[in-house]
Amino acid sequence: MENRRTEISDLGEFGLIDRISQNFTSLNKETQLGIGDDAAVLNSLGGCTVVTTDMLLEGVHFDLSFTPLQHLGYKAVAVNISDVAAMNAIPKHITVNLGLSNRFSVEAVDEFYKGVKAACEDYNVDLIGGDTTSSISGLIISVTAMGIVGQDKVVKRSGAKDKDVICVTGDLGAAFIGLQVLEREKQVFIANPDMQPQLDKYDYIVQRQLKPAARTGVIHEFAELNIVPSSMIDVSDGLASELLHLSKQSGVGMRIYEDKLPIDKQTYDTAVELGLDPTTAALNGGEDYELLFTVSMEDMEKLKKHSDIHFIGYVQSSDKGNIMATKGGNEVEVTAQGWSHFKKK
Amino acid sequence: MENRRTEISDLGEFGLIDRISQNFTSLNKETQLGIGDDAAVLNSLGGCTVVTTDMLLEGVHFDLSFTPLQHLGYKAVAVNISDVAAMNAIPKHITVNLGLSNRFSVEAVDEFYKGVKAACEDYNVDLIGGDTTSSISGLIISVTAMGIVGQDKVVKRSGAKDKDVICVTGDLGAAFIGLQVLEREKQVFIANPDMQPQLDKYDYIVQRQLKPAARTGVIHEFAELNIVPSSMIDVSDGLASELLHLSKQSGVGMRIYEDKLPIDKQTYDTAVELGLDPTTAALNGGEDYELLFTVSMEDMEKLKKHSDIHFIGYVQSSDKGNIMATKGGNEVEVTAQGWSHFKKK
Repeated sequence: MENRRTEISDLGEFGLIDRISQNFTSLNKETQLGIGDDAAVLNSLGGCTVVTTDMLLEGVHFDLSFTPLQHLGYKAVAVNISDVAAMNAIPKHITVNLGLSNRFSVEAVDEFYKGVKAACEDYNVDLIGGDTTSSISGLIISVTAMGIVGQDKVVKRSGAKDKDVICVTGDLGAAFIGLQVLEREKQVFIANPDMQPQLDKYDYIVQRQLKPAARTGVIHEFAELNIVPSSMIDVSDGLASELLHLSKQSGVGMRIYEDKLPIDKQTYDTAVELGLDPTTAALNGGEDYELLFTVSMEDMEKLKKHSDIHFIGYVQSSDKGNIMATKGGNEVEVTAQGWSHFKKK
Repeated sequence: MENRRTEISDLGEFGLIDRISQNFTSLNKETQLGIGDDAAVLNSLGGCTVVTTDMLLEGVHFDLSFTPLQHLGYKAVAVNISDVAAMNAIPKHITVNLGLSNRFSVEAVDEFYKGVKAACEDYNVDLIGGDTTSSISGLIISVTAMGIVGQDKVVKRSGAKDKDVICVTGDLGAAFIGLQVLEREKQVFIANPDMQPQLDKYDYIVQRQLKPAARTGVIHEFAELNIVPSSMIDVSDGLASELLHLSKQSGVGMRIYEDKLPIDKQTYDTAVELGLDPTTAALNGGEDYELLFTVSMEDMEKLKKHSDIHFIGYVQSSDKGNIMATKGGNEVEVTAQGWSHFKKK
């Protein structure tokens, strides 16, 4: 592949916008007018519109030395889609703002938007606008996502009830352990630039870190099964932190079981290899983008045969607190040791 | 006033979100759920929803050495509201993402959000969400704004027709000349830190730069007068650049008259004082956030008595090009020399 480098200044802002927008065509009938005017225009969506937004900064949220731009574009969309899904809504539209230092060429922007486009296609959402500007330092990404949900189907963090079952999709801790592997390989590479990283045996956990998936499929399944969870949140900061959000906003306690936490074998083995505790990775790793939700006992029956939904505990009264029953038969309090990007001095 | 400094890390991300959100209460009935869940929830808005987004970066779009944080918060909202207005829509909701380096205290964030809140109140919009994160370098602001407009009232850039009248609200060039004054005073201050800046006689133009207003009032007046402009855009990059957008997207030419350009006396006098051409400032200065629009001759009659809408020319066929008739009786081509933040090397 020819390694071309076109300066963004050669296209100018409007040229760059034209280049980006010509790759995107509308997938949703609600999208009346996309990129190219002062604002996008969406037809009346019916029901409720949900809106969420997230910012990803180079050096804080991602490290371009091991993150391909295409994956980053995908991830920036997926993490917002995940928030839309966590309201029980179907994602429809996104806007993407980019700040670019002059380190980035037009080809680099193309790579990023290839990932954005792949995510738009996977989740059936339309890119309807954005702002592209120069930045003094590195890459800045800000995404807003919108979706729709029936008025009576909105699921907040605040509806969990005593005796509800606590469920989580997929598996936990993989993205965190994947990040540890990537950072270890980076250090090896810095020490020995001729060595190629050995990532084959870590393919799943590395993928979970670099290209996480949003759980929109489960939202469609809820609709088909006529299930409305009593509360829901997506796992971005770590299971423990999210459990505490549901607990606080619902005014209830949570009881989970360590031996019920879904941990993939590759996650488990690699954690052990790295001298880390797999349970801690599952509880506090974060960036899983799985859905954590509570359902009534009745609705749980409908989900029993679902291969990718795991029952990890149940809701209890708030005076009983937030507790994990360990494999060793102890009870420990669930505390958030989640990732904090505002570092204490 | 006591000059307190609380570190953001002392509150943590969630503490900071709580602090911000407790100052905002919903103004719009459409706002079913604001800050505090995975996403905001808006009730069915009826008609069309318009969505726009913008990113403002320290060192590229603003200079904190002469920009009070409160004004910056106001401006970040107003420039997005202006884009909503440019679609002939009524603004309803905004989200605000902030990236903050450890230079910024909780009190600084409070100042910024005071400005956000003032703008929310002035334009009757609700802050419904956002993301707050640490940044490695300086202040990063990303705002998304949403509004509503009737299906048949959407005004794009593409509807201008031959013989329509070209109108602009307010006055032009003030924000640009205000910026020149601020930058001059900054240089004076760097050379002589004991000197206080003398800004009294520049109050209007400095205000136009630091705290621009969005023209939502005109949108309400259009509705009252039953006027739908044939095309509209807000003046962010400069009149010339915006005229060319309307021209290109409508497939028409534009003819404007230099002596019709609305320029405030303070703008004019200060431009002359600084050795700048007032007409160039009006054409290419940018950041005016006035509305540039075209209306039929018939609709123009209804606007004739409006003290703050100025007729600056008319639409012509595309083969006649984009022309300004100068005060001296010449005809010059309108070209965009607008501000480009992607600098050529």
